[in-house]
Amino acid sequence: MGRSVHSNDDEHETKDIASVTSSRRHGSGETMHKVGPPSKNNLMKEFKTTMKETFFSDDPLRPFKDQPRSRKFVLGLQAVFPILDWGRSYNFAKFKGDLIAGLTIASLCIPQDIGYAKLAGLLPQYGLYSSFVPPLIYAFMGSSRDIAIGPVAVVSLLLGTLLQAELDPELNPIEYRNLAFTATFFAGVFQFTLGFLRLGFLIDFLSHAAIVGFMGGAAVTIALQQLKGLLGIKNFTKNADIISVMKSVTSSARHGWNWQTILIGVSFLAFLLTAKYIGKKYKKLFWVPAIGPLISVVVATFFVYITRADKDGVQIVRHIDQGINPSSVKSIYFTGKYLTVGIRIGAVAGMVALTEAVAIARTFAAMKDYQIDGNKEMVALGTMNIVGSMTSCYVATGSFSRSAVNYMAGCRTAVSNIVMAIVVMLTLLVITPLFKYTPNAILASIIISAVVGLMDYEAVILIWKIDKFDFCACMGAFFGVVFIGVEMGLLIAIAISFAKILLQVTRPRTAVLGKLPRTTVYRNIEQYPEASRVPGVLIVRVDSAIYFSNSNYIKDRILRWLTDEDEQLTAKGLPQIQHVIVEMSPVTDIDTSGIHALEDLHKSLHKRDIQLILANPGTAVIDKLHTSKLDDVIGHDKIFLTVADAVRSCHPKSTIDEV
Amino acid sequence: MGRSVHSNDDEHETKDIASVTSSRRHGSGETMHKVGPPSKNNLMKEFKTTMKETFFSDDPLRPFKDQPRSRKFVLGLQAVFPILDWGRSYNFAKFKGDLIAGLTIASLCIPQDIGYAKLAGLLPQYGLYSSFVPPLIYAFMGSSRDIAIGPVAVVSLLLGTLLQAELDPELNPIEYRNLAFTATFFAGVFQFTLGFLRLGFLIDFLSHAAIVGFMGGAAVTIALQQLKGLLGIKNFTKNADIISVMKSVTSSARHGWNWQTILIGVSFLAFLLTAKYIGKKYKKLFWVPAIGPLISVVVATFFVYITRADKDGVQIVRHIDQGINPSSVKSIYFTGKYLTVGIRIGAVAGMVALTEAVAIARTFAAMKDYQIDGNKEMVALGTMNIVGSMTSCYVATGSFSRSAVNYMAGCRTAVSNIVMAIVVMLTLLVITPLFKYTPNAILASIIISAVVGLMDYEAVILIWKIDKFDFCACMGAFFGVVFIGVEMGLLIAIAISFAKILLQVTRPRTAVLGKLPRTTVYRNIEQYPEASRVPGVLIVRVDSAIYFSNSNYIKDRILRWLTDEDEQLTAKGLPQIQHVIVEMSPVTDIDTSGIHALEDLHKSLHKRDIQLILANPGTAVIDKLHTSKLDDVIGHDKIFLTVADAVRSCHPKSTIDEV
Repeated sequence: MGRSVHSNDDEHETKDIASVTSSRRHGSGETMHKVGPPSKNNLMKEFKTTMKETFFSDDPLRPFKDQPRSRKFVLGLQAVFPILDWGRSYNFAKFKGDLIAGLTIASLCIPQDIGYAKLAGLLPQYGLYSSFVPPLIYAFMGSSRDIAIGPVAVVSLLLGTLLQAELDPELNPIEYRNLAFTATFFAGVFQFTLGFLRLGFLIDFLSHAAIVGFMGGAAVTIALQQLKGLLGIKNFTKNADIISVMKSVTSSARHGWNWQTILIGVSFLAFLLTAKYIGKKYKKLFWVPAIGPLISVVVATFFVYITRADKDGVQIVRHIDQGINPSSVKSIYFTGKYLTVGIRIGAVAGMVALTEAVAIARTFAAMKDYQIDGNKEMVALGTMNIVGSMTSCYVATGSFSRSAVNYMAGCRTAVSNIVMAIVVMLTLLVITPLFKYTPNAILASIIISAVVGLMDYEAVILIWKIDKFDFCACMGAFFGVVFIGVEMGLLIAIAISFAKILLQVTRPRTAVLGKLPRTTVYRNIEQYPEASRVPGVLIVRVDSAIYFSNSNYIKDRILRWLTDEDEQLTAKGLPQIQHVIVEMSPVTDIDTSGIHALEDLHKSLHKRDIQLILANPGTAVIDKLHTSKLDDVIGHDKIFLTVADAVRSCHPKSTIDEV
Repeated sequence: MGRSVHSNDDEHETKDIASVTSSRRHGSGETMHKVGPPSKNNLMKEFKTTMKETFFSDDPLRPFKDQPRSRKFVLGLQAVFPILDWGRSYNFAKFKGDLIAGLTIASLCIPQDIGYAKLAGLLPQYGLYSSFVPPLIYAFMGSSRDIAIGPVAVVSLLLGTLLQAELDPELNPIEYRNLAFTATFFAGVFQFTLGFLRLGFLIDFLSHAAIVGFMGGAAVTIALQQLKGLLGIKNFTKNADIISVMKSVTSSARHGWNWQTILIGVSFLAFLLTAKYIGKKYKKLFWVPAIGPLISVVVATFFVYITRADKDGVQIVRHIDQGINPSSVKSIYFTGKYLTVGIRIGAVAGMVALTEAVAIARTFAAMKDYQIDGNKEMVALGTMNIVGSMTSCYVATGSFSRSAVNYMAGCRTAVSNIVMAIVVMLTLLVITPLFKYTPNAILASIIISAVVGLMDYEAVILIWKIDKFDFCACMGAFFGVVFIGVEMGLLIAIAISFAKILLQVTRPRTAVLGKLPRTTVYRNIEQYPEASRVPGVLIVRVDSAIYFSNSNYIKDRILRWLTDEDEQLTAKGLPQIQHVIVEMSPVTDIDTSGIHALEDLHKSLHKRDIQLILANPGTAVIDKLHTSKLDDVIGHDKIFLTVADAVRSCHPKSTIDEV
């Protein structure tokens, strides 16, 4: 094999590493291609690219390009209110789908709302209020076509837990309610701000696994708390952890349970779970579990009304205010000690609500292949909660279960949310008095059957199979919620997610490469055992950008590969390593610490008379090697386009290619 | 070109994706190689590898392998006390080098120690104490051969600032001193614990750039504070920020300055800076700046003694306790309100001290090519500070300037530290009374000339050239220290470093690949403009592991590349993209969120009748594709070893290879 790499003498001709190798290989049609030249060091461009990828990665301004001003105004309006865009092609066929879906989710949400409001420590009507105003706002501003907006179990529980740590809803009902509106207001402000500042990517730091664990734990906690209603227990703990709840249940076992309540609760729970099972088994019968709760409420209410079981200790709803949302602008605390409390609770509840809504929006968008702008969604969700907080609503978001029903019932646009809101409005205006005799036990059954779906054991099994670290995060969040509390579970989930990120950036993988027989392809010898090492050459691939957080590790790891290799070679009586080739294809960037580490590596190898060779550094890396003059130190003729070229340079006379 | 990729019918033969492609290409000697098979799912092995790379990446137990128990005991002892290892080959030649180096750094450290103790708000003797016990301990336990241990300017300033926020050294001298010992004790405990738990990698999260900025800012702050001594100002601000200091200086300009003090201070500062310049210019004259401070002290002290300039307002040291370190075990607060304060201050000072020492140890280890075990170093530094806190020392660490002098004076082992400690001991025993007439101005000059070296403007320029983001971190830390305070600067440095890590993991790079002419090599078309796109095929390389923090971004980014490409093709009237090849070589790992994102990507592409093809997934990725059954969904025949193979599968009849 011949080789004619440029020597250092050529430098005056070409000035940079672009000139490394451009000679023809003998014996094959392939050329030794030169390594891509360093780009012009354009700071503004680099900065703009980074900013764009960070904050505008979805390129929201694309349609505005090259448009007249009036058109830009219309487009801008459509960006804020997508209904102006999709509404223009709205037709009767779409409306038929939306109407059926809207009616279905309305029948599902009305009983759920009443139950969820109790979870949040609020009176039943506030749940219904929250299913009226927020979905209307969302329909105008949101871009998901399938999401069903309203109160959800996990956020209600979280809000209730956080609020009750500050105030007792029975002793200070007014302050409690006002603090709930305050928290809702700031949850909305938080969501709006994140979206407006295009910081939506921050919610990606809650990993899927952590969310699965958190949701499962919250579901268990919620289900356990429903034992109060289901068993008709009067003195029930206010703590949400499993130990307090089980103590409450067992200590009240002798005298506190009410058999009539249990009869109603358990029989309807059985009915609801059966309906759920049927809906899952036969996709066409999705409407069975969807209207099951409403039927249960009607039947149970009628039953209690007839038998007057409330006189035998069956607890009933008793009273729901009639009429639509009153204003609550003056209830929000903008000063005083509850302001900071409200901001804190709002931030936590707002974040969880956001995570849930965006996850739902993305899931269904992928199923129907349309695009969701996470940041725009956040602005819509934030606006809806801000307006909601002023009209007696508490934090609303997208509901997993109702969105799935919405999707299966054939919704086409957000109009299904409008239909639902109108039904809820009619309910508030006309039929709330009928809920008087609804037994609390039936609400408990409905909540339990709803949250069962949040315990996604199939996802947990998949997580266990795919990634053990994810499984730890999932279990950590789950047990944190169940045994300590919702807040702690959330904290554990975030902490484990972050630990994983830190591990990723501190300990990137490296691999020793070998040559696949009869190719010029070099691959990880652990993955491809048939790959053979090249005598006297150690080829290491670094699988990450080299930054301050990992530069020392990478340097030490490469030296350790070298020591390992040399030991084995000595044991076999083979000659030692003379060349270390670092395959840099995956090294997309390097910073000053990384440059120093490479320099140190070169020094260490030089002391041992070993040649450092780089293969395929990317644009950014070449650029920085050049500005730091490290390419002069390593040698311009030691930087190659491919590992194959680099190996060839180590063995000019050998016949590697023919092996 | 012929193609004979296995069809799905072949699956019964081979059962997994290992079988994808193994047929011969026509017209060349290369084969289409099969993709490496999924590894056996060995949880314990995976866990062990992760643990090892995280905590034992330097393989500290390697020498213990296959050794008898007695030998293991000796090795263990040598691991804790490296002196038992290198001491056995110690000889006179080495001692000669260490003796000269030790005497040189002793002459440098004695005047510095007195000045630095004042920076920390302590009496001068505590500086000398800290140059006696800690270096002795380090010599037995440390593994760096070049580091010079003792008090350093930045840590002294930091400790002084933090302590003075709690106590006034003039009003409560005893409590202040005791709190200093308490902080030193917990700094040691913190360092020891980090090392013992092998969490040393945590200090890598302070980036090089942030350290440069922080050090520079601290140097400016220290130099400014020395204006008090240099100008003989009596009423000087206690704040460390530049604005307070400049106000103090200007407001005292009329009556507060002392011309005799200024004369002494400025003339000796000029002498010291000249000496420093000479030492830098002529490497052989390194001893000139090294003994400059001691000469200045001797000359200035003699001058003041002769002229009794102290009677004219020249402030002098006045008194230094004679004798070696008294015990301070009982001074440490193990209870009470100062315990938590001490722990907090100790953790901050300990971390900064650690960062400095480990950076020095690594720098010199790379220059002489020996290995430093960061964790073992931390144990040594921690032990030395714990013992130090019990013998009236404050936080000691490695000094940049003295270590450089140590290295240049030809030190061979840590014995130079022992020599230095003995000289300091003799100083404490015999000659401290002679320091009585030493003017404070000379100490100020010495400190200024010492910290000038910490302002590493060359490094700043290099950082600016290499990485703009690093430059921001550097400047943030610098201005934070100078304008707000040492603590805030440190906080800014850490925050910016973390922001960079988060950006890295949320927004990994992607690149569109093209074919280099006359090769089968596919490279980034932005770096290699001569690379040509393959008609109808979009090849995207993802440059990072796909984790929850970036999975959505990566999916959206690939779809955006597709939209961009399709728009351009439509504009040119060319046919649309039919195949998307994702080059996965740099994707070393994928988690459940990543699997979901790939699934979503496949769904979206499928809806558009575009085929998703994967090239060269690594072991972990193949494994997880397999366990999640996503490989069945994508198709086993759509996973290839190289991009070239994948492209060939898209164009079975074309002549891509001959282009």
